[in-house]
Amino acid sequence: MIDGERKKRLVEGMKQLHLDAFISGSASEILLMTGYWPVLGPGVGIITAEGDIHLVLPEDEVELAQASSEASLTPYKPAELVRIIRPIEALSNSLCRATAGLRLSKASIGMQVDQGMQPASYASGCVFRCSLVDLVQSLLPQAKVVACDDAMEELKSRMTPAELSQMRKAAELASAGFEIAPDSIREGRREAEVAAEVQAAFQCSLKASNVQRSYGYFFCMSGPNSARASAAYARTRQRRIERDDLVMVHANTCADGYWTDITRTYIAGTPDGRQKAMRTAIAEARTAALGATRPGVAARDVDCAARTVMAAHGFRDAFKHSTGHGVGFAAANGNALPRIHPQSPDVLDVGMTFNIEPAAYFDGYGGMRHCDVVTVTADGVNVLTEF
Amino acid sequence: MIDGERKKRLVEGMKQLHLDAFISGSASEILLMTGYWPVLGPGVGIITAEGDIHLVLPEDEVELAQASSEASLTPYKPAELVRIIRPIEALSNSLCRATAGLRLSKASIGMQVDQGMQPASYASGCVFRCSLVDLVQSLLPQAKVVACDDAMEELKSRMTPAELSQMRKAAELASAGFEIAPDSIREGRREAEVAAEVQAAFQCSLKASNVQRSYGYFFCMSGPNSARASAAYARTRQRRIERDDLVMVHANTCADGYWTDITRTYIAGTPDGRQKAMRTAIAEARTAALGATRPGVAARDVDCAARTVMAAHGFRDAFKHSTGHGVGFAAANGNALPRIHPQSPDVLDVGMTFNIEPAAYFDGYGGMRHCDVVTVTADGVNVLTEF
Repeated sequence: MIDGERKKRLVEGMKQLHLDAFISGSASEILLMTGYWPVLGPGVGIITAEGDIHLVLPEDEVELAQASSEASLTPYKPAELVRIIRPIEALSNSLCRATAGLRLSKASIGMQVDQGMQPASYASGCVFRCSLVDLVQSLLPQAKVVACDDAMEELKSRMTPAELSQMRKAAELASAGFEIAPDSIREGRREAEVAAEVQAAFQCSLKASNVQRSYGYFFCMSGPNSARASAAYARTRQRRIERDDLVMVHANTCADGYWTDITRTYIAGTPDGRQKAMRTAIAEARTAALGATRPGVAARDVDCAARTVMAAHGFRDAFKHSTGHGVGFAAANGNALPRIHPQSPDVLDVGMTFNIEPAAYFDGYGGMRHCDVVTVTADGVNVLTEF
Repeated sequence: MIDGERKKRLVEGMKQLHLDAFISGSASEILLMTGYWPVLGPGVGIITAEGDIHLVLPEDEVELAQASSEASLTPYKPAELVRIIRPIEALSNSLCRATAGLRLSKASIGMQVDQGMQPASYASGCVFRCSLVDLVQSLLPQAKVVACDDAMEELKSRMTPAELSQMRKAAELASAGFEIAPDSIREGRREAEVAAEVQAAFQCSLKASNVQRSYGYFFCMSGPNSARASAAYARTRQRRIERDDLVMVHANTCADGYWTDITRTYIAGTPDGRQKAMRTAIAEARTAALGATRPGVAARDVDCAARTVMAAHGFRDAFKHSTGHGVGFAAANGNALPRIHPQSPDVLDVGMTFNIEPAAYFDGYGGMRHCDVVTVTADGVNVLTEF
């Protein structure tokens, strides 16, 4: 149940930074530290340099937490009928008790203080803003809070085998949506109809899955709208698909906190010369990027491999974004390592998990993208989204 | 396009607090201040005591922002191929430019610093932690940052007519899911199948809607699992529905940032005496709570109205939570006003929008809840989820 490899790396990370503990109130980092992905309530994860793992959480998340984590749990009552209490006050007493036993009174404590991206774990979720750092500092006035934002991104960038098996589940769930996409895409249908249909296929596939919590976001963008998909986010509109349009289906799916980022592009009819050329270039760029991916390689060389192919096919300017970015603890995170970018300083390592998304976008006409999630293996690369 | 009533209230709120501006990086508050609901990128909304409204945002959100907001936009490039830049650095220059024109150098600036709840606006979203306050303070070293968390909750608690029309859209979208729920619920089916079907009906209804972005979360909990729905969150499981089970369908839907919180409970067969008694009590408690709702009434009296009926039917202990809480800028937010709670200090006012959710839960057996979203009108109450 406990991911021993993850625990080892967290303890090792603290040693390198001369920290006595990591404390976090962000859902992805609580997942990283404890194995439990919080739902919505204000929860706090703690791991000490001795490898003690603690989780303070609303009592109605205890059952879920016990099913996925072996952290010591300190539940608290977030709401009562006999009094009204602010969530941060409700948390405070329990956090005080949880930290009291850990000899952290003069500790160096790694906490996140910087901007980050957190995946949607429910219809709404907790943000602590400055309050968690203030609370920890008030509970442990002699402790020193040290910014550990970069260390957390480093730790999240290499997935353990256990984490990768969760990623495979998330990818498998997504495949149910993509399977029906070619049949769903037809001239005259609205993007929103296609998105609804693939989303529904995904939702139905959940009934056979053994994940506790899974969400999926499916989007459809056709014709000129697919050209705008070079943006950081996807958006389905009401446009009707026209004959021979490029039609992009984009998905972010998750299995208990581990996220995918997947795109396929279809043609609503018969591909013309330009579409065939785009398809060929993107397929070759994908192959080149995959071929360049292995431990020890500079991330920018993977970007270069894809970019060189796109340029050779005349699509240098049309390939507007980087070839990929870290994917897993969030579907979209500008800080996530490794950055498969022309200027990236990152070096690939086993377990690094990211997308490879060669693409070409032409304003007013359309865009094509093929986005896979891949992971670096000892001898190369493994594609998690081979469908 | 601009919600003049909202702007007036924000300016009035600043006057009361002796503030020169509100600055926020949280999506719900950016929506409140500018009319635009950010997608995923780090964006910052500013409104000054003079009523100037500014929005710093990633350039690929400009088109969406222009469609919903008349704020002055300062776009920034969140990513480039020629260099790698941290998101907060990318934002910094533009925020500096946006604030430069506003004579805020010695201002009192209201910012949120405390814990809060933010709705899911995409597969992942921005959290600033301490960094936004630090950034504003570094850009305006002589300005004074003042915590405005409570003021923001106050401002969000009363919806303007324009905001309420968005709430009605979100409720209408949800109704498509609930319409098919009675047919979907059958003995032998899994909760996950029912949830997928109602979710799919919701997704399909989007094709006819004129909202830019809508998400919906539908859940199904049957038999003993419905008893656990007294928790702060809903969760669909793989359990097969049994004959005469209580089956709860819960939804949170949104229309461009305005959220609903809706529950209906069905019976998979013929109601027995206990189920009939629960249904009668909950219907009467709902009627009593609605009857007590009007401007000037203490929120605790609305809770009392529902709770007294439940107790009279023998369900005092089974009604485990408060009668309601503020709903709109988030589906679930423990800080949201008004709190329809036995100890609430809140007083109802026109535009206050909240849920009324009388319920009875029996461990190991089942739970029944009827949750509506209502808004206080000049002469009483209007139910937004009358289906």
